Amino acid sequence: MIYFDNAATTFPKPRAVINAVTDAMKVCGNSGRSGHKYALCAAETVYNCRKKLAELFNTRPECVILTNSATTALNMAIKGTNCINGVTVVSSIEHNSVMRPLNSLRKNGDTVLKQFLADMGDDDITCENFSAVSRSATNIVVNHASNVCGRILPIKMLKKLSPGDAVFIADCSQTAGHIPIDIVELGVDIICIPGHKGLLGPMGVGALIINPFSDLVIDPILEGGTGTDSKMLEMPEYYPERLEAGTANIGGIAGLSAALELVEFSSKESELYEYLVNQMKNIVDITIYGLPEKSALSSYVPVLLFNKNGYDCEAVAATLSERGIAVRAGFHCAPNAHRTLGTYEIGGVRVSLSKFNTRREIDRFIDALNTV
Amino acid sequence: MIYFDNAATTFPKPRAVINAVTDAMKVCGNSGRSGHKYALCAAETVYNCRKKLAELFNTRPECVILTNSATTALNMAIKGTNCINGVTVVSSIEHNSVMRPLNSLRKNGDTVLKQFLADMGDDDITCENFSAVSRSATNIVVNHASNVCGRILPIKMLKKLSPGDAVFIADCSQTAGHIPIDIVELGVDIICIPGHKGLLGPMGVGALIINPFSDLVIDPILEGGTGTDSKMLEMPEYYPERLEAGTANIGGIAGLSAALELVEFSSKESELYEYLVNQMKNIVDITIYGLPEKSALSSYVPVLLFNKNGYDCEAVAATLSERGIAVRAGFHCAPNAHRTLGTYEIGGVRVSLSKFNTRREIDRFIDALNTV
Repeated sequence: MIYFDNAATTFPKPRAVINAVTDAMKVCGNSGRSGHKYALCAAETVYNCRKKLAELFNTRPECVILTNSATTALNMAIKGTNCINGVTVVSSIEHNSVMRPLNSLRKNGDTVLKQFLADMGDDDITCENFSAVSRSATNIVVNHASNVCGRILPIKMLKKLSPGDAVFIADCSQTAGHIPIDIVELGVDIICIPGHKGLLGPMGVGALIINPFSDLVIDPILEGGTGTDSKMLEMPEYYPERLEAGTANIGGIAGLSAALELVEFSSKESELYEYLVNQMKNIVDITIYGLPEKSALSSYVPVLLFNKNGYDCEAVAATLSERGIAVRAGFHCAPNAHRTLGTYEIGGVRVSLSKFNTRREIDRFIDALNTV
Repeated sequence: MIYFDNAATTFPKPRAVINAVTDAMKVCGNSGRSGHKYALCAAETVYNCRKKLAELFNTRPECVILTNSATTALNMAIKGTNCINGVTVVSSIEHNSVMRPLNSLRKNGDTVLKQFLADMGDDDITCENFSAVSRSATNIVVNHASNVCGRILPIKMLKKLSPGDAVFIADCSQTAGHIPIDIVELGVDIICIPGHKGLLGPMGVGALIINPFSDLVIDPILEGGTGTDSKMLEMPEYYPERLEAGTANIGGIAGLSAALELVEFSSKESELYEYLVNQMKNIVDITIYGLPEKSALSSYVPVLLFNKNGYDCEAVAATLSERGIAVRAGFHCAPNAHRTLGTYEIGGVRVSLSKFNTRREIDRFIDALNTV
């Protein structure tokens, strides 16, 4: 089976990751809950992962909040920093993990929601569109790269154009592990990441990462035992404890920690992607979305959306699946992105690569597609 | 090393549990996100676990909401059912995973908080204390068994004494897997459980379980992609999707599913516990808390709190740890329970057993304790 659904979760998981999960389950107790060796082993496992994430994204270990998913991290970031009577600005390609929490705030009257059109070919236009709505922004949430078409948005430029006191959250679900991310260089307050996509870790781990120069106070939306300050009826003031309630996924964190040892930003993914795009363009009855001719592929993570003209996207994916190729059809939990790409009514077929894919697999996929 | 910290997380994890986690990581994609075999394998893994939990706790599979922890489940249950201008009644032995979310609601003016004294010797007194404050209750949250002293509270009786329309949530963190729990028989609306304690699963999985006869609407506090109804800006109306946003911990869920095959309610734990209690009572300079002479041990899960008279609890735990015995000292994230037991100032040493412990281990512990 050829696995081209890496934007949902990367597969296969490296052996070192699987082994780390197994090993942790054999020796770890509950982290931060006791002083015996099993608890200390868990605490060390958690700290190691936190430290590696801090190094990778250029922050301090205590600014790394481990969560169970990017979705939880985004909920925590969005709801925990929402300004009273605020205005939240989002791009037109956000995932439901951003739009659904924000819609709930909007419905409760807790924020006004404004959207800017993310241009799929020209970052300057994206920036102009952003500036037209961002002047009154108190909160900004922007997708670092689309999970539907792979387009990377110019986060650093958008941050520079933002009101200085606006909270800026970047959803790096599709970029973490695929391209280098330096939170200080981006200048944003928070980035949210999954552990199981580009970083190659297990499902069940994510992180909310805070800019080391930010003095932002994030209010917890999940409260509970922290193993510290037990007598306080509130969560501690300090990070990461303030935002980490309850027992952590020690096995998953150990797996992510092992995965972080494998991070490398080679050109392999982008070369594969370029090969895929060029092969796809040779097929006559295919429409590719969000990938204008003039656009440099360096503005993309290796995700591509297409339709076979006249065919239902789900049927195409089902046929490909029968032929041993795993892709994902439909709306990819991001209806606004599909609206932006013109596929809101019909959806599309998504191909998403990882560095474990090969040109040979792409060739087989192209063959299969030609005969669907 | 002798592991007596099973109330924090059980250890060791059964081999079948570890293997199931490993196996799932080798074959599963992201559940509910695509139609290819890796995604379907994940969906099947999730459904199997859901079905087994439903059978164990006597509800329907769709009433089982898989979470990353009991803490998240409790936050979801408490905040998602909170009544406007409501009155929440809790026992005097609740964990911070209940008290901290409730305190946050109280501080925001979203509920009034009332507490009843849980009696450690007489359930009738507990019921009287409950009735004295529960008449105006709109929401009730009660610990099924104390994580500090093991005392089981009479949930079924308390439910019968409750106003019929009050939402009743039972925190079964210390009972799930230790004693049989039938949500229909208890009559409560929601129970929250961890997967990694009495159920012997991995850390990183828990569940919110809804009474199949309850028509309660639980509002989500975490929103995001569900892989279904992508075009809706709100979470779906139906369970479990309504409360399951984002990628699930597939490995952890597979591990819990394997653990559920091993559930058995034998008398082994209670026999070990009785042995422990009897041996402890022979030590002269020990104070045991929350375990009155007249109380039947069937009202306890195998958790015991003590202090060695005149010694600091942390020092006792550290010495035991040096001698190869893992216990947990301090306040156990449950300051109110310590207040109830009279140990709010000094804390205590907690011994918590699982069915993997032996009498021989208890003997070695008693020997160590005698010479601390």
